[in-house]
Amino acid sequence: MNNHFYHTLKLSETQNSGPFVGINMVTSLDGKVTSGGKLRPGSLGGSFDRQTMNFIRSRFDAVLAGGNTVRQHPYYYGVDQDLALWRENRGLTAQPLTIILSRSGKLDPRTPVFQDPPRPPIILTSSFGAKSLAAEIKKQAQIEIVNETIHPSEICQILQTKYQVNRLLVEGGPSVNYQFIQAKLVDELFVTLAPRLVGRTADLNLVRGEEVLPKAETATLLSVYQHENELYLRYKFRW
Amino acid sequence: MNNHFYHTLKLSETQNSGPFVGINMVTSLDGKVTSGGKLRPGSLGGSFDRQTMNFIRSRFDAVLAGGNTVRQHPYYYGVDQDLALWRENRGLTAQPLTIILSRSGKLDPRTPVFQDPPRPPIILTSSFGAKSLAAEIKKQAQIEIVNETIHPSEICQILQTKYQVNRLLVEGGPSVNYQFIQAKLVDELFVTLAPRLVGRTADLNLVRGEEVLPKAETATLLSVYQHENELYLRYKFRW
Repeated sequence: MNNHFYHTLKLSETQNSGPFVGINMVTSLDGKVTSGGKLRPGSLGGSFDRQTMNFIRSRFDAVLAGGNTVRQHPYYYGVDQDLALWRENRGLTAQPLTIILSRSGKLDPRTPVFQDPPRPPIILTSSFGAKSLAAEIKKQAQIEIVNETIHPSEICQILQTKYQVNRLLVEGGPSVNYQFIQAKLVDELFVTLAPRLVGRTADLNLVRGEEVLPKAETATLLSVYQHENELYLRYKFRW
Repeated sequence: MNNHFYHTLKLSETQNSGPFVGINMVTSLDGKVTSGGKLRPGSLGGSFDRQTMNFIRSRFDAVLAGGNTVRQHPYYYGVDQDLALWRENRGLTAQPLTIILSRSGKLDPRTPVFQDPPRPPIILTSSFGAKSLAAEIKKQAQIEIVNETIHPSEICQILQTKYQVNRLLVEGGPSVNYQFIQAKLVDELFVTLAPRLVGRTADLNLVRGEEVLPKAETATLLSVYQHENELYLRYKFRW
């Protein structure tokens, strides 16, 4: 294990009344998180990036992703064995909670995230979506029925009061990231900048919505770490 | 003048038969070069960024921009007085050439770039576009009529053989950047990474086209410079 960057990672304090919220994404130099419609620009996937993602996750109580993201990456959003031990030694659960935000409930029960997950994933869905959920998923996961137009701050509140989530990591997709930033709930952004260009208009950006996002009162570049030709950036926002 | 970053800037060698080609852009963390339809995410425009842009331009024989970019930023794409002197002391023209790529020829003669420019800008346009060009523009600029579907390598060839452009800097817009990258002509990319998020889907990315761009054989992060919360990155591509 040669990843010095996040060995000493300590999250800053949140400005919100709710949980501390982080976002972690990998992007190309032109801000894309998909390439040809697929998650993660192809030049990535080095073991260093995966280690870093693990380190970041290990500092959070839960990792949240939207339905589209989970359909493309249908794994438990957990950490590897040594970080699970590191967490246990600090009195934490071995694995952060996986939270899935899916209005439609269209999730595949045969994918790894629903096959013997280390902890039951939480699925936040509409009453309509709950009806679409496969019976096998209902056995493995905890279902939270919420209003279709639920505000991200209400999501935070449910997660904090009901599931003791005081540090929430959002891992996309771009629309979910957008909602949390638009609500001024995001404390820190972790970005891995891959040394390539995607260029395709139809590919998705790190953040994606209808309006220009509010400008943070301050946006501080907390750290810059270079590994080969990748950059690992960490920003702190005050709203 | 306190910009140490590019004082010693030396461009690398091109792999092409034509001129060395660079791109310089400012983007948000989500890869946007416009915010609410306007060029340059608003948190930028610090004097350091403008100095850096000047330094980069000073190393090139010509600066090329597309019609949309020139309509939004209708100034001569030149350098300030001390860099003009620096160039003259090295036997260069005081100002790099401004090259405008405009198929339609819809350019406003009353804008600064056509009001007593330090050198006549070169306008590459179609035969149709040339007819649309205002008479005042034809007095101030040099018109090059080219095929509507001209390949960027042909543009490079014209500029090199006819105007002695051995180092060409492209400053957008996103479609122009795309064409030069797709043609594998870009040797270096300079990016200023502004510490903000735009998020609006309709805003333009650093690069913009129909297909996923070809992946460079190597993409090397040549330098990383941090000024306050901005990052100045320089990448070298081999195709």
